[in-house]
Amino acid sequence: MKPAIVLLSGGLDSATVLAIARDEGYAPHALSFSYGQRHSSELEAARRVASALGAVEHRVAEIDLRLFGGSALTAEVEVPKDRDLAAEDEIPVTYVPARNTIFLSFALAYAEVVGAQDVFIGVNALDYSGYPDCRPEYVAAFEEMANLATRAGVEGARLRIRTPLIDWTKAQIIQRGLELGVDYGITISCYDPEGELACGRCDACQLRLKGFAEAGASDPAPYVAR
Amino acid sequence: MKPAIVLLSGGLDSATVLAIARDEGYAPHALSFSYGQRHSSELEAARRVASALGAVEHRVAEIDLRLFGGSALTAEVEVPKDRDLAAEDEIPVTYVPARNTIFLSFALAYAEVVGAQDVFIGVNALDYSGYPDCRPEYVAAFEEMANLATRAGVEGARLRIRTPLIDWTKAQIIQRGLELGVDYGITISCYDPEGELACGRCDACQLRLKGFAEAGASDPAPYVAR
Repeated sequence: MKPAIVLLSGGLDSATVLAIARDEGYAPHALSFSYGQRHSSELEAARRVASALGAVEHRVAEIDLRLFGGSALTAEVEVPKDRDLAAEDEIPVTYVPARNTIFLSFALAYAEVVGAQDVFIGVNALDYSGYPDCRPEYVAAFEEMANLATRAGVEGARLRIRTPLIDWTKAQIIQRGLELGVDYGITISCYDPEGELACGRCDACQLRLKGFAEAGASDPAPYVAR
Repeated sequence: MKPAIVLLSGGLDSATVLAIARDEGYAPHALSFSYGQRHSSELEAARRVASALGAVEHRVAEIDLRLFGGSALTAEVEVPKDRDLAAEDEIPVTYVPARNTIFLSFALAYAEVVGAQDVFIGVNALDYSGYPDCRPEYVAAFEEMANLATRAGVEGARLRIRTPLIDWTKAQIIQRGLELGVDYGITISCYDPEGELACGRCDACQLRLKGFAEAGASDPAPYVAR
């Protein structure tokens, strides 16, 4: 089995991506980040998912994005609740500056060390249209740069940034994951959980619940009662 | 004065770049990394240089590249000494996988937070031709990607990766730095120093000493006696 790097957050999307990489016959090396998140439940979920979905290895890189402030996920900004997502077209405050670029850069180093030519990331251009670093043109530009940045690229191996979810709806992601046997009960998507319980009201929870509804499935993850 | 990010290692090249950014009228925000280097003298030098050359701010980001092993600068590999550099055309073992990509990604986040449109980095394609991520085509590809990755790029501001040293010889870098008043006695370039003393024999020391000789200047930095 060829090695691949899979960026794993502990959320629904990256869990599905890990299952897809396995299904395609890769030996997935999962990579998560401890980056000053306000809650640790995300990393605990990542560990559960890596183990349940057969990652051959799971590494957690410590980086400190709090150094740069600037986002509700890392600084003391209020996470917005009950927003009307259909009416929003601005970059949300939960955007972390250059986050995917930093994550993919570490994945590049990891790929070089284990000899992987494929890096999987669960970016999605539909549900996260407000994030500049979730767009296909960004991913293509990163891949181009990556092939000039590394020893492998120089020596002729083509490195690929794989984004299987990029044009899928949340419902399609969930349907594919369920086909592949992903237990979404062990994932967490919430930006502002209470312990292990998702809030049900932040942007991420709203998108997730809408996705399950459209997929005709029920979300097995635990939510705050309301 | 417009803000700019300057990647600062504590070595000769990045000190010169900081002086150039100041000379061009920027307010330099210096960024260094603590990335599991085998020695801390590099970071101490970066602090001295930031202060001496008038950085308006100096931040040190902690990242752990040891997670990925793979280089003499971060793992327990012997630093090569007394190599015949003119005869070498391979990527050196001191190459750190994806290092410049990771450094520039953090610089991108920092730029976004302080509103800078210019990121200065002291890469050099002549003296470090063995490193894939020191080539002009790599830098151009990173800039392209950066403009798709960030809020500023999306909103129409053009972010630039500035590499003033890219086609200069080491002698030219030193000459320019001396004109700008850089005190090279407070910088350190050595891959394998003994305390504050440079070894004089690793690739970096050889390039530096040759550069001073060609510039007709003497290196004020302290070396191991031999």
